[in-house]
Amino acid sequence: MSGGLGPTGMVHRHRNIQGGTARAAVFGVSDGLVSNVALILGIAGASTDPTIVRVAGVTGLMAGAISMAAGEYVSLKAQAELVERELAIERTSIAENPEAETAELAAIYVERGLAPEQAKVVAAELMSDPEVALDVHAREELGVDPTQLGSPLAAATVSFLAFALGSFVPLIPWLGGSGTGAVWASALLGVGATATVGGMLARLTERSVVRTAIRQMLVAGGSCVATYLIGGILGASVG
Amino acid sequence: MSGGLGPTGMVHRHRNIQGGTARAAVFGVSDGLVSNVALILGIAGASTDPTIVRVAGVTGLMAGAISMAAGEYVSLKAQAELVERELAIERTSIAENPEAETAELAAIYVERGLAPEQAKVVAAELMSDPEVALDVHAREELGVDPTQLGSPLAAATVSFLAFALGSFVPLIPWLGGSGTGAVWASALLGVGATATVGGMLARLTERSVVRTAIRQMLVAGGSCVATYLIGGILGASVG
Repeated sequence: MSGGLGPTGMVHRHRNIQGGTARAAVFGVSDGLVSNVALILGIAGASTDPTIVRVAGVTGLMAGAISMAAGEYVSLKAQAELVERELAIERTSIAENPEAETAELAAIYVERGLAPEQAKVVAAELMSDPEVALDVHAREELGVDPTQLGSPLAAATVSFLAFALGSFVPLIPWLGGSGTGAVWASALLGVGATATVGGMLARLTERSVVRTAIRQMLVAGGSCVATYLIGGILGASVG
Repeated sequence: MSGGLGPTGMVHRHRNIQGGTARAAVFGVSDGLVSNVALILGIAGASTDPTIVRVAGVTGLMAGAISMAAGEYVSLKAQAELVERELAIERTSIAENPEAETAELAAIYVERGLAPEQAKVVAAELMSDPEVALDVHAREELGVDPTQLGSPLAAATVSFLAFALGSFVPLIPWLGGSGTGAVWASALLGVGATATVGGMLARLTERSVVRTAIRQMLVAGGSCVATYLIGGILGASVG
């Protein structure tokens, strides 16, 4: 690590972690795996016809990928609009109530260890430019960087591809196979892919590969077992 | 609005928008609606047996709600661990490289309009307490409030309930009905519920109800139509 400032003015590099695409990718691939393993095993528990399993699996892949992308888009758009609404409230308050907002900022700096007089001077200077004032208040009160609210469209695209990838894995055995063998192959491929996702996550977060992979498999496996049992009960009750 | 500080020390109240539960609720209910309308219409396009539609719909509800909750949990956990990793990098850098980190902070304050000498003094004082230094650097460099990283478990619970609610709506006509009538009823209930979600979102974000409801319906409707067509093509191709 360099002792001075690098060309970007930063001492070290940070990954962009708040945009939401990393979360969307993890969500998409995990959800694709879990929901299509669960759907395929659920349908296989209720019907012995492999054609129905295949149709349900491909429909589940497409329906899931499309709806995940749509869900990411509308929910991140809604979240961005909620943040923008809070920023608008902040902007109005800074314009209409500058003294109270300056006092609020000064109080935050006193809490952080600045002398009261100095905190007042700093707060007043930061408040003198309305855009700087909004940026500072957003970071301090909302805990957001107003210039990095993330892209709903990018997250939706990542989500679609990740879900399609994840949900294709348990479908592979049914492209040519059927019956108990295909059920087991779907389940095992699901477990293997889930462990792989866990291992990759652990590398990114620099945590224990074994612990992260086990957590990922426990959550995914629990989901699949629960849904398989529900599918079996439903299949038995409706014929 | 009061002219002074309220009992919380804040000039005005902000909603907690970064925890992720609002996003998870919107995502869950939208995805539940879209994916189960799409699954039900997709299966109905491939098979005329209402029992299969019913089993697929209930399995889709349970599989989707469980896998959404699991996906929210693992992805928010992964995001929190990514943030914690960046915070650990920051903590190490503050400990090992305090002068460069102080200069970095001072440069940020100069950019915001403080005099260089004053910026240096403020940066040095904020850096004197390691916890304050970490908090300030997290807000300035990462755009995160390290005390508000959100609860993966809360988001997962909200997601489960929201998805179950959303995906139950298009299933209602199939509890007693079947055929073209039930297909239309599912589609219309889906449209009505989607418009309602859009209207509620618009109230929260204080935007146009009509525009938000139309956006919500266009995204959801486009998803459903695409999946229905895919289901029809698949149904025709596999028999």
